[in-house]
Amino acid sequence: MPLLPESVRAHLVTDADVARTYAVDSSPGAGAPEHFEVVRARSREDVVEVLRYAEAHRVPVVPQGARTSTTGSSVALEGGIVLNVEALDSIEVDEEERIAVVGPGVVNGNLKAHLTDYGLAYPPDPASSPTCTIGGNIATNAGGLCCVKYGVTADYVRGLEVVLPGGEVMRTGRRTAKGVAGYDLTGLFVGSEGTLGVVTEAVLRLIPAPDPALTVLAVFDDLDAMMAGVAALHGDRHTPSLLELLDGPSLAAIQEVGDFGFPTDGGGVLLVQSDRPDHTHEDVQRYAELLRSAGATDLAVADDATEADLLLQGRRALHAAMEARGHRLIEDICVPLRHLGELVSRVHTIAGGHGLEALCSGHAGDGNLHPCVFFDAADPQSVAAADAAFGDIVEAAWDLGGTLTGEHGVGALKAPWLAGELGAAEMARQRAVKALFDPHGIMNPGRVYPLT
Amino acid sequence: MPLLPESVRAHLVTDADVARTYAVDSSPGAGAPEHFEVVRARSREDVVEVLRYAEAHRVPVVPQGARTSTTGSSVALEGGIVLNVEALDSIEVDEEERIAVVGPGVVNGNLKAHLTDYGLAYPPDPASSPTCTIGGNIATNAGGLCCVKYGVTADYVRGLEVVLPGGEVMRTGRRTAKGVAGYDLTGLFVGSEGTLGVVTEAVLRLIPAPDPALTVLAVFDDLDAMMAGVAALHGDRHTPSLLELLDGPSLAAIQEVGDFGFPTDGGGVLLVQSDRPDHTHEDVQRYAELLRSAGATDLAVADDATEADLLLQGRRALHAAMEARGHRLIEDICVPLRHLGELVSRVHTIAGGHGLEALCSGHAGDGNLHPCVFFDAADPQSVAAADAAFGDIVEAAWDLGGTLTGEHGVGALKAPWLAGELGAAEMARQRAVKALFDPHGIMNPGRVYPLT
Repeated sequence: MPLLPESVRAHLVTDADVARTYAVDSSPGAGAPEHFEVVRARSREDVVEVLRYAEAHRVPVVPQGARTSTTGSSVALEGGIVLNVEALDSIEVDEEERIAVVGPGVVNGNLKAHLTDYGLAYPPDPASSPTCTIGGNIATNAGGLCCVKYGVTADYVRGLEVVLPGGEVMRTGRRTAKGVAGYDLTGLFVGSEGTLGVVTEAVLRLIPAPDPALTVLAVFDDLDAMMAGVAALHGDRHTPSLLELLDGPSLAAIQEVGDFGFPTDGGGVLLVQSDRPDHTHEDVQRYAELLRSAGATDLAVADDATEADLLLQGRRALHAAMEARGHRLIEDICVPLRHLGELVSRVHTIAGGHGLEALCSGHAGDGNLHPCVFFDAADPQSVAAADAAFGDIVEAAWDLGGTLTGEHGVGALKAPWLAGELGAAEMARQRAVKALFDPHGIMNPGRVYPLT
Repeated sequence: MPLLPESVRAHLVTDADVARTYAVDSSPGAGAPEHFEVVRARSREDVVEVLRYAEAHRVPVVPQGARTSTTGSSVALEGGIVLNVEALDSIEVDEEERIAVVGPGVVNGNLKAHLTDYGLAYPPDPASSPTCTIGGNIATNAGGLCCVKYGVTADYVRGLEVVLPGGEVMRTGRRTAKGVAGYDLTGLFVGSEGTLGVVTEAVLRLIPAPDPALTVLAVFDDLDAMMAGVAALHGDRHTPSLLELLDGPSLAAIQEVGDFGFPTDGGGVLLVQSDRPDHTHEDVQRYAELLRSAGATDLAVADDATEADLLLQGRRALHAAMEARGHRLIEDICVPLRHLGELVSRVHTIAGGHGLEALCSGHAGDGNLHPCVFFDAADPQSVAAADAAFGDIVEAAWDLGGTLTGEHGVGALKAPWLAGELGAAEMARQRAVKALFDPHGIMNPGRVYPLT
């Protein structure tokens, strides 16, 4: 790699061990390449300098925040630059316009905490909210637990400042509540996974803070009853602010790492919340009644916010429970709501057919599931079986009218699968869109769109 | 023009008088060109045939619905084809997924009426809702009265079927609640004003129907007090479902066409609604108190939906009142909320400086105003003064951090102004985006992006 510009060299990570920590994200099997540089940008100008240099010398650039990606979209590339923007973490709140102007390095949870002083809220809440950054949220159009009521990241991004390959700074969108002057390129950048440019500032729409949420926890003996519960809630006029599913194997796995009172032979658990101002108590009681009618065998309804949070603890233990079970592939498929139960069944049939165990959890209110398939990394046959199951699950989602990714993005992990969803013509069109912004293909090459 | 394919000739409008009615939209001074054809498509295949033919023969195509555009975006072009899609008006509602799959010719108000049977709602409500089509709403990313609470058309479009020049049928987006597989091209088509392709189907997100709205009407003696009222409402935790402004000259104009009880020497009127389930009475009482504290000199609060609707009658008479006053240019600027009062003042100063009268009305909750400047079409000096005032108002919006169009779009009327907002680099980029989908420039040429 030719010498970086002097202004950028000051922000290079020079310690090889430290650099290696920037080489990987949270995707399975991510490893550092042999040669790469890490630049920790301190300003928009640093980003401009890096993209000017990288375009001139045709050096691949991987934009990066907190490395919580599960798809390998922020893993270093051989001979490339990791451009970390965590330090661009300014927050400016405009109460009157109900917007926040933030840097891409702002941690999602920090923004939420910052906004409580203003009585405002930024809804998108990926499970990694305490660590993930807004830049990464924008890159993947991140969702989370709130989506059933509040939608996804794209629904809150009004405008962006983006640095393009070559160093040009462009602005998309607006600060005003409305605006239709020219094409909407904001939406194009949201979810583009670092393949077009580097976001250096975002204008986010905020909403008045809802009430602290109350929770219902409902236990079901079988999947059909649980799905009847989901359907009953979806028919309610007041959409829950959270509607999460844990299937039987998820409950069993969680109970292995701690006693959260879950049955280990059950069909599953639904967690439901309401944050509707002045109606949380009424809503959770009504949700509980709907779930009882649908066949819930046990119900816990929280009376206050502390208890509401306690009821979610089992859900939070899922991540540790999966880690404790060993190597795994985690899916992110999304299907029409009416096919959610069928999808859970098929996941277990598929995994079983490959001699593997699986569990299903996810955002039941959106049809967005995160099936997890466990395998033995030391056994090549088991690894191959997991890969095959992974593919079969994607195909099951397609068969049910769904998509291969609801909120995690395509990244490196699912790039080989994208053409199967979009088709050749659409792949070619999207590559042409990329080439408009990134003619030499330096932006996160091979991610989302496979190298040809 | 070479002979159209036989399948399409069956749908040609052959009566010249009828054809001329398809040559114009609702924009000021729109006139039919000398040579053009009108095709009334009956199916997606008709659209495919027309775009295949038009691409092969380099014939300009103007996609068209109900011709309610105020910017000339659906006026026939010389030597071109008007491709009217009003007949593509199917509606398929999926209650469980809370989506509607509709043809572009569905009238906005008809969709709303259709959904009441399901207890569902499609919020976007341009003032032309009884006649405008969803296709046109998508083309302009239409807003309306509901936006302050519910957002704009783009917030409800999950996916599109689009026919491109040459006849290729592409699909964007998804039917599932979430999905991030590849770039979001749905957002690119929403608001593209017929410059990229022709929408033949849309998947629309629906919401549970809110309560019938109740209304507050508040009279103010001066603009500053009225803006204090807007700010007070914007600070309320429960966002109104409608927040409309009529300035003093608007009230005077309305009183000229009928007695709606408005003062003719006042500062203005705010109309405010709540449709929040179970809280409409409480909300409008609270809104009324906020407005009284802000300085409202007279208040009317509706107790039921009938009365609530009556209070909006004066607002509805505005269109007739403007027509009665003669020739006019209607603006569609949008500014940050804190500058709304300043914008109203500047509009009157600008109009007065050109010897013209103006009135301001619009969506106070969004900062989206529709100033109207009256002129004498028989007097070239007056016409020139109106054009100059129009430009000065756009520049005032820019000066206040706003945009030249909040919801009507750029069309033909504001195409000469777009570069002033976007800048040369962004204009070039957006033209390149257009060229990707429409390499020969047959789609609504000259609209949005001026011919070069």
